[in-house]
Amino acid sequence: MNRIRTGMIGGGQGAFIGAVHRLAMRFDNRFDLLAGALSSQPERARQSGLELGLAPERCYDSHQAMLQGERGRADGIEAVVIVTPNHLHFAAVRDCLQAGLHVICDKPLTVTSAEARELQALSQAQQRQLIVTYTYTGYPMLREMRERILRGDLGALRLVHVSYTQDWLATPLEQQGQKQASWRTDPAQAGAVGALGDIGVHAYNLSHFVTGQRPSRLSADLARLVPGRRLDDHAQVNCRYANGARGLIVASQVAVGRENSLRVQVVGEHAALEWVHEQANLLQWFPLGQPGQTLSRGGPGCGDDVRRLSRVPSGHPEGYLEAFAALYRDAAELIQHGTPCPVLPTVDEALHDQLFIEACLRSSAEDSRWVSL
Amino acid sequence: MNRIRTGMIGGGQGAFIGAVHRLAMRFDNRFDLLAGALSSQPERARQSGLELGLAPERCYDSHQAMLQGERGRADGIEAVVIVTPNHLHFAAVRDCLQAGLHVICDKPLTVTSAEARELQALSQAQQRQLIVTYTYTGYPMLREMRERILRGDLGALRLVHVSYTQDWLATPLEQQGQKQASWRTDPAQAGAVGALGDIGVHAYNLSHFVTGQRPSRLSADLARLVPGRRLDDHAQVNCRYANGARGLIVASQVAVGRENSLRVQVVGEHAALEWVHEQANLLQWFPLGQPGQTLSRGGPGCGDDVRRLSRVPSGHPEGYLEAFAALYRDAAELIQHGTPCPVLPTVDEALHDQLFIEACLRSSAEDSRWVSL
Amino acid sequence: MNRIRTGMIGGGQGAFIGAVHRLAMRFDNRFDLLAGALSSQPERARQSGLELGLAPERCYDSHQAMLQGERGRADGIEAVVIVTPNHLHFAAVRDCLQAGLHVICDKPLTVTSAEARELQALSQAQQRQLIVTYTYTGYPMLREMRERILRGDLGALRLVHVSYTQDWLATPLEQQGQKQASWRTDPAQAGAVGALGDIGVHAYNLSHFVTGQRPSRLSADLARLVPGRRLDDHAQVNCRYANGARGLIVASQVAVGRENSLRVQVVGEHAALEWVHEQANLLQWFPLGQPGQTLSRGGPGCGDDVRRLSRVPSGHPEGYLEAFAALYRDAAELIQHGTPCPVLPTVDEALHDQLFIEACLRSSAEDSRWVSL
Amino acid sequence: MNRIRTGMIGGGQGAFIGAVHRLAMRFDNRFDLLAGALSSQPERARQSGLELGLAPERCYDSHQAMLQGERGRADGIEAVVIVTPNHLHFAAVRDCLQAGLHVICDKPLTVTSAEARELQALSQAQQRQLIVTYTYTGYPMLREMRERILRGDLGALRLVHVSYTQDWLATPLEQQGQKQASWRTDPAQAGAVGALGDIGVHAYNLSHFVTGQRPSRLSADLARLVPGRRLDDHAQVNCRYANGARGLIVASQVAVGRENSLRVQVVGEHAALEWVHEQANLLQWFPLGQPGQTLSRGGPGCGDDVRRLSRVPSGHPEGYLEAFAALYRDAAELIQHGTPCPVLPTVDEALHDQLFIEACLRSSAEDSRWVSL
Repeated sequence: MNRIRTGMIGGGQGAFIGAVHRLAMRFDNRFDLLAGALSSQPERARQSGLELGLAPERCYDSHQAMLQGERGRADGIEAVVIVTPNHLHFAAVRDCLQAGLHVICDKPLTVTSAEARELQALSQAQQRQLIVTYTYTGYPMLREMRERILRGDLGALRLVHVSYTQDWLATPLEQQGQKQASWRTDPAQAGAVGALGDIGVHAYNLSHFVTGQRPSRLSADLARLVPGRRLDDHAQVNCRYANGARGLIVASQVAVGRENSLRVQVVGEHAALEWVHEQANLLQWFPLGQPGQTLSRGGPGCGDDVRRLSRVPSGHPEGYLEAFAALYRDAAELIQHGTPCPVLPTVDEALHDQLFIEACLRSSAEDSRWVSL
Repeated sequence: MNRIRTGMIGGGQGAFIGAVHRLAMRFDNRFDLLAGALSSQPERARQSGLELGLAPERCYDSHQAMLQGERGRADGIEAVVIVTPNHLHFAAVRDCLQAGLHVICDKPLTVTSAEARELQALSQAQQRQLIVTYTYTGYPMLREMRERILRGDLGALRLVHVSYTQDWLATPLEQQGQKQASWRTDPAQAGAVGALGDIGVHAYNLSHFVTGQRPSRLSADLARLVPGRRLDDHAQVNCRYANGARGLIVASQVAVGRENSLRVQVVGEHAALEWVHEQANLLQWFPLGQPGQTLSRGGPGCGDDVRRLSRVPSGHPEGYLEAFAALYRDAAELIQHGTPCPVLPTVDEALHDQLFIEACLRSSAEDSRWVSL
Repeated sequence: MNRIRTGMIGGGQGAFIGAVHRLAMRFDNRFDLLAGALSSQPERARQSGLELGLAPERCYDSHQAMLQGERGRADGIEAVVIVTPNHLHFAAVRDCLQAGLHVICDKPLTVTSAEARELQALSQAQQRQLIVTYTYTGYPMLREMRERILRGDLGALRLVHVSYTQDWLATPLEQQGQKQASWRTDPAQAGAVGALGDIGVHAYNLSHFVTGQRPSRLSADLARLVPGRRLDDHAQVNCRYANGARGLIVASQVAVGRENSLRVQVVGEHAALEWVHEQANLLQWFPLGQPGQTLSRGGPGCGDDVRRLSRVPSGHPEGYLEAFAALYRDAAELIQHGTPCPVLPTVDEALHDQLFIEACLRSSAEDSRWVSL
Repeated sequence: MNRIRTGMIGGGQGAFIGAVHRLAMRFDNRFDLLAGALSSQPERARQSGLELGLAPERCYDSHQAMLQGERGRADGIEAVVIVTPNHLHFAAVRDCLQAGLHVICDKPLTVTSAEARELQALSQAQQRQLIVTYTYTGYPMLREMRERILRGDLGALRLVHVSYTQDWLATPLEQQGQKQASWRTDPAQAGAVGALGDIGVHAYNLSHFVTGQRPSRLSADLARLVPGRRLDDHAQVNCRYANGARGLIVASQVAVGRENSLRVQVVGEHAALEWVHEQANLLQWFPLGQPGQTLSRGGPGCGDDVRRLSRVPSGHPEGYLEAFAALYRDAAELIQHGTPCPVLPTVDEALHDQLFIEACLRSSAEDSRWVSL
């Protein structure tokens, strides 16, 4: 299968989200990262690119340089992934679309709706895809939730409650110079909203993702609960839908005890569904007047899309793959550098396990007699 | 960073575990898959290799052919991943070690302890690594469990209980020709043990992984609970440790309602720890006489190794990466084939979300007045 | 210990809540039910009283008759329990206070604040107690929550979120003549509020109970989500406290899948606490920057009041007493009526259990040999 | 309804379990406690009886004296509750049965099977009931479990696993003179077994209660894990049933982190059921090949016996009654002694709650305008 020739803007050394995008690109091996404008600092851009195995001439200083350089190549990039700070998204997306590239952009796409409208029109005019990585929409059981709601299993909807709560901004980290906190709480860099834009938008996005519906009216209360904070760190938004249904969006970054809690509850006239991030492999299904059911990713009752998306069998939490990859990471260290790794299973483990099995067979064959190992 | 030049034996088209190994290899991008003997059927071996992007001349018919062909190349493979059926592991591992390659082998390494001993000796003699992928040892919170036990936080150990229970063999699937069930319940292919060898060995392995101790005696009861079954589908093994501590290993493939439930409980004189697969990001810590604590992967109280292994921030279930990758899979379909994907977030979503934020700002600025969206 | 001589108004045959009050009175055996005006229908009042073992002359037709009759007796009642329909509370409470009795009244005390004020003044003037049974304030772990908050363990409060959700009114039961639904959804009988008055008031009451604080402002959205319903069946109320903290009260009787879910979350600057009704014996304690703890009723970390209130040891769910009482109920049936009860343990069970123990001793003494039972 | 005239042997001042029995007797008000031999110390027996409101002449010094004294009375007792130390049960039960009384005895009935057999014969000969209070058999959801298994919903049984684990004996409390620990770990007082007899017997009893079946063979391993302990504090018992099914009984009093954990799992060919004490109101139902269901006490899917046993509506944890009773306890203190109780809801609370409701109505009527409280 041909892979998509891809470039990246932003995401140089030390950038968390850029590395996550690249890892996600490798999962199914359908993208080749071939070019990058990974930093606005030329030397850092170059070093970052080389580390990732890019050809030196395809490590660019700016996205403009990349667009120009790639245009002339037979093997030039077809798509671009944008992982710059939020306020730089707009220009990068615009330029890439104009250059005829497909764009995958980290969320939020823009900081104003006017900019979003302009990019929407441009994407249509250029007939190029513009994709925004709202990560949570990729969870198989949220897709199952959506499927059940859209095909009418719940009847008319009545309640759509989504909350996204964290606690990492419960203290004024920005006053201690913590980088992530600083830009997120600074109106100059983050725009007019804090928690609402950072995580509330995920909650709102999911409320539409799973129901296919948007509220017609809302009443919002944005709060700055940590003294000295300059943007909202907590928001409660009541919503009303055209059919009278009620919505509630809660976003908080001061909810002590919640690391990254996302909870989606949709209630209809005949049934309800609930999903929580902490148990992302499960979906609770409550048919009115019957016992509640727990659906497990890929288990009985799940639709085809869940099966298509599942990389590991039902009952394996999705972290199973990370566990697998952790072994490969340790193995690479051991093989390349000879770094001893006491936790990496080797033949010694395998031998002992085989001795255990053989002892079990002896004991069981002799009516469970105690045998030595 | 140079990647490890790697070959694969087994894992051709349609093989589940081969694909998982390749995905795990890509996670940190430290292995290059360059050669393969992916099937014992020549045409299938070749097609499987081409699909994976191998050079045609490096798609081999047998592992022997691969070892010979790679030996002569300047860029020949340094390591090999073995994912054949279990009874073929031994010969493949032996030949690869003899050819001077590092080996990563799927579990179980061998089907007898005599074979394991031979490979142990060979690995030492050849000074080549022989790694066995007991997946569960890669879970960060099991490593945290191990660290706490090994440094003595629990005091003398008293109980080591590990159970691994599934239900997929609750019916005689092998009598209906189901492939996975057929070989696992056939003494000719699976060896002398069924559930004990397939999953009990994981449980036993973890009992050692987390405690660093092995029992000195055991009393086993292997059962065939499904009529007509030819190997054990349920096992209960009582264990005793040198210091008098008691162990219990339960393995079952007929435990209706358990998809893939793995539970590890270790009790010492001062404290206890519990981990369950369904909530792999958590670890329960019970200090005697104090309230129990829930440790979260990467959160407060976790050691350095957990942080090193964590790819996503605390509070993000590890399936977060799969969710991310699901978006990239859908994006590839859309970009390459124009396949419409109603669930993939695009600029349209981003625009609406921005409108939501702006409506919230208006409402909040006017004392939570209801505003239209 | 002398018991309190008590009368009851309302709560005749078939009344659910009256029986609950009488059972609660018997728990600690400190009340003697000696008189009653148990129904407004004379014959039913009399039969109900006789069934409860009241002397015939102390079964009254009305609360007025009871007050008059008891006044003349040397052993006349000192206190009264009022469990009539809500709109009759006011007159009964007023008359009883005026007669010099202590009053325990089911919630809600009145249907308007004007009435409540009048009773407050009367209670003070008469120097008689007026107690309202907000049941949930009796849960030991909610009292622990209160104690921790009031002594400042959380620092300044930031969030007070309480939700009380049920689903029994998800269909228009009142249109089918269901009695409980009919009066609760009828403005003539229930007053101006539905779900808010029935359960939202519990949520609000608890928000004050655990924090000692009341909001200064609120913004409410009451909804009638079931077509044809005449009072609110869902309410979302945003609150603001004087110090800027935010509150949220959610009450719903159409939340499919929630039988009787009550959830209390309080977040402060240093820590947070959460309690859910479904696990009433537990309290989650989240100190900022440390692993979360699960406090168990009567276990480590609980204060004196929890211990005082606990009738069974830590680790025994409080339903333990009901289980115990279930045996006594079955025993009464068997002893009085000879009704055979296959589930009631008798000497036959005890004999077999003793045989089991003796077999275990034999087996264990002989190195776990299998022995017959 | 006539109440059963009842006496009690044992259970004087300070005895925990005697008070629990008396409370359980009052739940349904079908027993009248009229006589007692509450202690072997005459003065304590008398004081204990008076405190409980017994007539002075019915406070006896010994159970023999009680049997003689009651025999001559027209209103003499019909039944007796025995809550003495275990080793005194036998003589008391025997004498009471011989005196023609029904007997309710705390568990264990006897300390040898020979004694149990003798009482069994005597109970039959005398045609008097002999009931043993295995508390857990009174839980409604365990009765539901039993009903489903006995009517064949699971098909042939395959696994019966029951564990009962605690941690209160994780240290050598008996060496510090703790009373409960001392007699339970002393072979002279407790008999030949420790944890197995104290709690393992509950586990075994439930294995029969829910399945109606007893194992035919067993293999036991009793352990003394705390240094210096003289009786088992941990037991693992493997069982086999006639049809080949496997059982496992685990009893432990050194399982740090487990307060009083009781877990019952039964697996059949078509379905499985699981119940855990910590969530006694729930029962997990796993039909093979379908999503698991959570049955709630009294909710959809429950049989008639559950409804008969339920004192509070579905969704109310059974501790609801204790919460209710806690208010009555505080109310008694306030009414009788004027003891101020800051946590007892009074008219002040009710007034504020009514003000809240009225504020909500104002706000909601004016489009959710913020209003002051």
